[in-house]
Amino acid sequence: MKYYVGIDFGGTSIKIGIVDEEGSIVVKNSFVTDPHKSGEKIVKDIIEFTQKVMDDSTLPQENILGIGIGAPGLLNPELGQLQLLANVPNLNGIFITKAVSEELNKPVFLDNDVNAMSMGELYYGSGKGKKNIIALTVGTGVGGGIIINGELYRGTTFTAGEIGHMSIDRDGKYCACGNYGCLERYVGKEGIIERFKLYQSKGIETSINKYLENGQVTPKAIAMAANDGDRISIEVLKETGEILGHAIASLVNILNPEMVIIGGGISNAGEVLMEPVRMGMIKHAYIIPAAAVEIVKAKLGNNAGIVGSASLARAKLKI
Amino acid sequence: MKYYVGIDFGGTSIKIGIVDEEGSIVVKNSFVTDPHKSGEKIVKDIIEFTQKVMDDSTLPQENILGIGIGAPGLLNPELGQLQLLANVPNLNGIFITKAVSEELNKPVFLDNDVNAMSMGELYYGSGKGKKNIIALTVGTGVGGGIIINGELYRGTTFTAGEIGHMSIDRDGKYCACGNYGCLERYVGKEGIIERFKLYQSKGIETSINKYLENGQVTPKAIAMAANDGDRISIEVLKETGEILGHAIASLVNILNPEMVIIGGGISNAGEVLMEPVRMGMIKHAYIIPAAAVEIVKAKLGNNAGIVGSASLARAKLKI
Repeated sequence: MKYYVGIDFGGTSIKIGIVDEEGSIVVKNSFVTDPHKSGEKIVKDIIEFTQKVMDDSTLPQENILGIGIGAPGLLNPELGQLQLLANVPNLNGIFITKAVSEELNKPVFLDNDVNAMSMGELYYGSGKGKKNIIALTVGTGVGGGIIINGELYRGTTFTAGEIGHMSIDRDGKYCACGNYGCLERYVGKEGIIERFKLYQSKGIETSINKYLENGQVTPKAIAMAANDGDRISIEVLKETGEILGHAIASLVNILNPEMVIIGGGISNAGEVLMEPVRMGMIKHAYIIPAAAVEIVKAKLGNNAGIVGSASLARAKLKI
Repeated sequence: MKYYVGIDFGGTSIKIGIVDEEGSIVVKNSFVTDPHKSGEKIVKDIIEFTQKVMDDSTLPQENILGIGIGAPGLLNPELGQLQLLANVPNLNGIFITKAVSEELNKPVFLDNDVNAMSMGELYYGSGKGKKNIIALTVGTGVGGGIIINGELYRGTTFTAGEIGHMSIDRDGKYCACGNYGCLERYVGKEGIIERFKLYQSKGIETSINKYLENGQVTPKAIAMAANDGDRISIEVLKETGEILGHAIASLVNILNPEMVIIGGGISNAGEVLMEPVRMGMIKHAYIIPAAAVEIVKAKLGNNAGIVGSASLARAKLKI
């Protein structure tokens, strides 16, 4: 049996697991590091945590073939360099794959978390056996991973896949990225909550209060209320799905993928969201590429970070 | 010296040329066929015309390595089959590469005209030496070709690149494809003329009458008037460029290409269009991919069809 380590670097929280060839996690743990430490010390922490998980697995070390690191923010996968991590700026500039590889004597690979998730879905999730995939994570923001001919497409400066910043309305809502009408502003957390509050302000009855998180309306609360039959929540998810489906229609026309995989917090809403997404796509895309594409939920769920990161190593080692 | 035949199948008008390794056309001719003939007879015409051009070249036949056919409409490049040609329906279903190859004893390759143009620009035009390119033809409609890692990306059912049917306004103008807000409706011929007539109706003075084609306002007439300082025409092209640039910003965010090449009738307007395109892109795209991309005019101009089609053969034969 061959194993890969997946390091899901979420900023201060670091999840590390060992993944077998079938995509099952055989051991995992999560750690916290202090973002105020120097970059070198944080890297030392990561190395220690990883060593601990490998020791805990009691696997023969030679069966662990490589290590993949998925991180949010800007990075250079070819150089293995972290470039712009919003939450842990002390790591900016660090060549993390080299540092970890030297200490642990394994090949180490780095990519952004959305690309990692996309590769996880390709190897072990909904995308198994497919070649051309667009993977979307819809949560606070909207991220994207593009797989072409079974390989990640990273683009010229490794920033491909920013599907959340495709404009769906050139006179639309202003986005912090400087653009107008970014998809993320409509189907990301903020957009969903705005839409909910608009309906709520009209006095339509809602059972949302049962599902609030820390007293707040959240996409998760809306998803739960929708599954409980709440009218506003169902409508909000239907609209969100239609907008997302319309945007996916553009992607289907441009890239003609065989599969679009939707993950992230919102995918937990299930069919109340997914069916409007599919309908929105079919209504707006060309008939031939529309008929050729499946739109499905991501499969890996909470394990997407670890399994995806491990997939980065598997993809690069091709073993 | 190695040569390739390029067949630019424009429907009833067929341009055929022989292209050398530097992308120069050594001999060319154009022919007309009757669309009411049977498919078999039209194919026979194409074969005869091609033989004639090869004979006229007086090149040793063994130096002509292959034949590429670029055609508008739906087709299957792997099977070499024409599937849905709007102007010559009698050819639908015909396996054209097999038919031509059997008669002329050369390998024959088929793709759509926009993909052919894109490959021509990659080998011999503005895209020389680049790897990740988006090529756009902006004329009556808007077509696109996507080159990834130096190869055409065709998608799952060979329909990738329909960039004209990316929606830039989800509540926007209705398009005949069934979608709303398609880019083509704003920057294609009809959209440009609509915009011109709107300003003209407001009584702003214009010198367009000097440039009308058959008494009609056309994008070409607008381009010529703009270069002559006509205020409305300049404004129309500026707006068209900004809209196109904003759409390209989405493509830059999604695909992070190193170059975007703009061809088709509108590119003849020159800098009065191109500068707003670049500005529109820079204003709306993320800083890193925006800084990494060049937006340039297509180089091949009137020869794009023949040279591009010949490039299809060169790409496939890899010689």
